[in-house]
Amino acid sequence: MRAQAETGTHLDLRLALDQLLAAGGKRVRPTIVLLAGGMLGADPDKLVTLGAAVEMLHTATLVHDDLIDRALLRRGMPTLNAKWSPAATVLTGDFLFARAAQLASDIDNVALMKKFAETLGIIVNGELTQLFAARGVISRENYYERIFAKTASLFEMSALSASMVSGEDEATQDTLRIYGYEVGMAFQIVDDVLDFCGDQDTVGKPLGSDLLQGLVTLPAIFYAEQYPADPDVKLLRQGNWQDRECMLRLVASIRSSDAIQASLDEAAAHIERALEALEPFPISVEREALIDLARYILDRNI
Amino acid sequence: MRAQAETGTHLDLRLALDQLLAAGGKRVRPTIVLLAGGMLGADPDKLVTLGAAVEMLHTATLVHDDLIDRALLRRGMPTLNAKWSPAATVLTGDFLFARAAQLASDIDNVALMKKFAETLGIIVNGELTQLFAARGVISRENYYERIFAKTASLFEMSALSASMVSGEDEATQDTLRIYGYEVGMAFQIVDDVLDFCGDQDTVGKPLGSDLLQGLVTLPAIFYAEQYPADPDVKLLRQGNWQDRECMLRLVASIRSSDAIQASLDEAAAHIERALEALEPFPISVEREALIDLARYILDRNI
Repeated sequence: MRAQAETGTHLDLRLALDQLLAAGGKRVRPTIVLLAGGMLGADPDKLVTLGAAVEMLHTATLVHDDLIDRALLRRGMPTLNAKWSPAATVLTGDFLFARAAQLASDIDNVALMKKFAETLGIIVNGELTQLFAARGVISRENYYERIFAKTASLFEMSALSASMVSGEDEATQDTLRIYGYEVGMAFQIVDDVLDFCGDQDTVGKPLGSDLLQGLVTLPAIFYAEQYPADPDVKLLRQGNWQDRECMLRLVASIRSSDAIQASLDEAAAHIERALEALEPFPISVEREALIDLARYILDRNI
Repeated sequence: MRAQAETGTHLDLRLALDQLLAAGGKRVRPTIVLLAGGMLGADPDKLVTLGAAVEMLHTATLVHDDLIDRALLRRGMPTLNAKWSPAATVLTGDFLFARAAQLASDIDNVALMKKFAETLGIIVNGELTQLFAARGVISRENYYERIFAKTASLFEMSALSASMVSGEDEATQDTLRIYGYEVGMAFQIVDDVLDFCGDQDTVGKPLGSDLLQGLVTLPAIFYAEQYPADPDVKLLRQGNWQDRECMLRLVASIRSSDAIQASLDEAAAHIERALEALEPFPISVEREALIDLARYILDRNI
């Protein structure tokens, strides 16, 4: 009876999971796990398990996110939410959380498990903050907290936990943590830039969608700092982010301003710090690939 | 920044959590943890952490359950779902999952963490089964699988993990596991009986609500086995559980039949096996309390 309860999945669920896991995405997080762990000589089997755990956790949060945002498209494909009931979507996310926790626990490392649980807490708390408190806030500090919680925390965990698996000392673990953190921050900043000026088909959602939901990301913050007298900026600051016409005009202003380049420069500074973190390590195929990966974060889709 | 992301919660969330955690419930699972661990001489601090982890996990699944069932009342109080958006409800559940995982990881026991993750998987998979496949099924085997996943798995984990914390050998761990399993199975059977004939104010939801949703529990299964020619049973067997009038009539028939007593006898048999599992242990205050708790499961609200 127990065996069946553990392994028996349902056709609908299996199809949904296939779609979710095959739909693509760049698999950046497990790639970081495999490369960072490979560079440090960790057990490849454990790294594969860890990479899968990280990707499952990421996918679980995406599934619940899509329900929360009522998103109908993700990566250009219909979301579960678009096709399923909220009930099925909630449970599919929970199922992925459970599998992620099972995979993470298979690595037999208590410190890693703690980090895993802590990171899940940071991600969910960040989403709660976004839901309750962060609409229309024009603040770099707030923005950095948000993108750490949303993205960089899991990148950080990916690199850090790979170094835990290979049994590194705390100093080395912290160096890897910095690499993951900086790459994650850059990744989210570039994502937020793409929301303004990416190829709409590639981004897979309408341009300017963050601002239309009251989420003020780095390009809008830079723009607001540079043009405080812009009437649309004033309206945004007054909390009128639900004025769609005004926000669409603001999106156009930001797109044609140098706030875009300023944001990319900020992302580039994060990548520089990520590359610095790799300097102490001897040259290896994996180290070069981590460097390439960090640089690719800046170039993708732009 | 990180510290804030970890510890900063929101007023709305805090109020919701206060309500959830103060709303009562019987705290049966942490009670089992504390008593079983106490009987075995485990570290009390670890037991408190474990008990909190188990109750958080339980509460997380209740929060998502209420969203899934679109329930407006739980324990006679409005659910989060009744007052909040689905988004806030999903994230509050996720927040509790994260906290549960953090607490469980604080116990520094890899095997326990694995059991924890596995149990979460069993619970979620059981809910998915219920969602996709189990409506209108009249089968004892199916019923036992469902109540194991839904309830007994976490009771089992509560007692088993308490014995892990105290460092017992596998045979003793298995004895505790049996105690938790049997008490959990009895608990759910009694719950399912109460759905037919409990005091409506205490149960906190309309009588017969399971059958009205197509969930065929033990009293209905016994009744269907005993009266296969009852026209309402035939309709149910044909999948017409959405015929409300017919199901309400069937609820009344079951209430006045001896299927209720037969179900309680079945629960009593589980409790007998739970008490047998305690026999090898020397007499102690905790052992007596575990015996009382098992007997109380049978008596509550009837």
